Amino acid sequence: MKVDGTWRRAIEEVDGRVTVLDQTRLPYETTWATLAGLDDAVRAIRDMTVRGAPLIGATAAYGVALAVRADPAASLDSICDALAATRPTAINLRWALGEMQTGLADTPRGDRGAAAFALAARICDEEVARCEAIGEHGLPVLRALANRPVRVLTHCNAGWLATVDWGTALAPVYRAHLEGIPVHVWVDETRPRNQGLLTAWELAQHGIPHTVIADNAGGHLMQHGEVDVCIVGTDRTTRNGDVCNKIGTYLKALAAHAAGVPFYVAAPSPSIDFTISDGRDVPIEERSGDEVRFVSGLGEHGVTRVEVVSAATAVKNPAFDVTPARLVTGIITERGTVSPGDLAKLFPERVPR
Amino acid sequence: MKVDGTWRRAIEEVDGRVTVLDQTRLPYETTWATLAGLDDAVRAIRDMTVRGAPLIGATAAYGVALAVRADPAASLDSICDALAATRPTAINLRWALGEMQTGLADTPRGDRGAAAFALAARICDEEVARCEAIGEHGLPVLRALANRPVRVLTHCNAGWLATVDWGTALAPVYRAHLEGIPVHVWVDETRPRNQGLLTAWELAQHGIPHTVIADNAGGHLMQHGEVDVCIVGTDRTTRNGDVCNKIGTYLKALAAHAAGVPFYVAAPSPSIDFTISDGRDVPIEERSGDEVRFVSGLGEHGVTRVEVVSAATAVKNPAFDVTPARLVTGIITERGTVSPGDLAKLFPERVPR
Repeated sequence: MKVDGTWRRAIEEVDGRVTVLDQTRLPYETTWATLAGLDDAVRAIRDMTVRGAPLIGATAAYGVALAVRADPAASLDSICDALAATRPTAINLRWALGEMQTGLADTPRGDRGAAAFALAARICDEEVARCEAIGEHGLPVLRALANRPVRVLTHCNAGWLATVDWGTALAPVYRAHLEGIPVHVWVDETRPRNQGLLTAWELAQHGIPHTVIADNAGGHLMQHGEVDVCIVGTDRTTRNGDVCNKIGTYLKALAAHAAGVPFYVAAPSPSIDFTISDGRDVPIEERSGDEVRFVSGLGEHGVTRVEVVSAATAVKNPAFDVTPARLVTGIITERGTVSPGDLAKLFPERVPR
Repeated sequence: MKVDGTWRRAIEEVDGRVTVLDQTRLPYETTWATLAGLDDAVRAIRDMTVRGAPLIGATAAYGVALAVRADPAASLDSICDALAATRPTAINLRWALGEMQTGLADTPRGDRGAAAFALAARICDEEVARCEAIGEHGLPVLRALANRPVRVLTHCNAGWLATVDWGTALAPVYRAHLEGIPVHVWVDETRPRNQGLLTAWELAQHGIPHTVIADNAGGHLMQHGEVDVCIVGTDRTTRNGDVCNKIGTYLKALAAHAAGVPFYVAAPSPSIDFTISDGRDVPIEERSGDEVRFVSGLGEHGVTRVEVVSAATAVKNPAFDVTPARLVTGIITERGTVSPGDLAKLFPERVPR
């Protein structure tokens, strides 16, 4: 998608040099960071230079590639362990590492570097293709809604910054925009990390109308008929269709259900964990209280961090919550849109025997 | 309640000098502001130097007193109009102005200054008595809960900073604490104005354990059995028990209902509007988008404001929402706790014929 008018991806590799858009600086500064090796990849995922379940997976894949190029004799298991330990909730991370391990298992060590880069590139291309297909399958959902512009509410950032290109929740929005269907997006701020500002930045790059709201406001807007549809992404969806996503998603799903607003989840298949029967078993990452304590923004002298909650005050910061399948109207995947209970029918080969 | 160990009220009058705790500076600085006349009172309410429905009413009462002392010949109607125009949602403002107008109607103009100060002082004392009674009636609710500590979740600030003393939602918490019942409060940050930090500040002054959470986190905590009860305040509750309160309250009520967590509203009777049959007719204040755009906190050089959302991005900022009566377990008033549908039985004299 576009960055200042140029088509880019959130992670790029040119002649073996891997760069990512530094999402800790956005929307204030557009900076690309080079991942020189495994440590950089680990740090980029852990510190959220890159974030979003699919992009975490893609970055991990390149992390493996960088590691085996640097040391073809290194243990694949240790490399993958280091990358897997960065974030616990997004299942795409484990999925991508599994793909790399399987794909490289039979490759002679001397050929591993090149093979790993080719595999990581394929994972990225497939990720893009899945997101593009989600845009295609989500388009009829938006087209069928009566209001023009179609008023979409989204939480967090499940746009191309969270994937590699297109996005998950935002793919249907981009697709509709390209088709000339007017869309307006209500963008949840998404405290504590304010990923809504990434969504606003993305949408602005493409000229798609949007309005930022506090996370508290969405229920009120839905009560008053100001939202036609909610679309969110997911960090891990379980076999029964329970949706683990950014903290606060559940509250919006409750409000949508109460107001009769359809609530869709855009889930590329690597985000679906068929080994877990329901959302109760998804590990929920507890992140540093500093994410609540400190807020970054533009001050007089550029990007400035202020302490909003003092160190003397206790803070709890769960990063994800689980929206039960009963609140989900449909899950938009690369193979089509299904009700949450029918995921297994769409991906029979993924269901453990 | 306590400020640095000294018992204070959120608005005080000594020898005709009216001071208020400047809530735009808290929790970073404890500053008292003098209200020298009507203009100061209007500004204090409009700019939220004082906030919280009962305290807005008390401040408006002193605003009338300051105005008639300065000019005994001034029109009471114009004075009240200026004060009423500051904030549209909190009904206490109109109630207090009505009390002042009725109370001063038959007072000779020469005596109005002294009479108005006496009346404002009485309104404050009655406000304190109502809050104290709410603490008394709310105490059995907390005592009956099995967990120790009792885990209360509250939204916004409905403590003594929002009233004159004691608070509404926090009055039962303070009362329980005094009785030796251990309480722990989950404090919603309450974007965009972060009034949760006022709640945290208040609770810290009294040594009551508490933890600040992002507004997005409460649903997850309730799903996981980490909340025993929700208690919130109200800016206007209608005859049928619909509760208008700080934006985001509705989302917590939905989550409480879904998780079987009791949801109480602490409402002194001046917060109840018996002239409106249900919440659909409550005017919802739309506040400046700057409240979302800018965040204040401690920077390197003291209190600093940073721009989080750029001026180029559209922002919508409704300040209140309405929680339908069906989601409310009980309303705690100065006359006792009732189910929302029974408010009129408790205050029959307030119901219009």
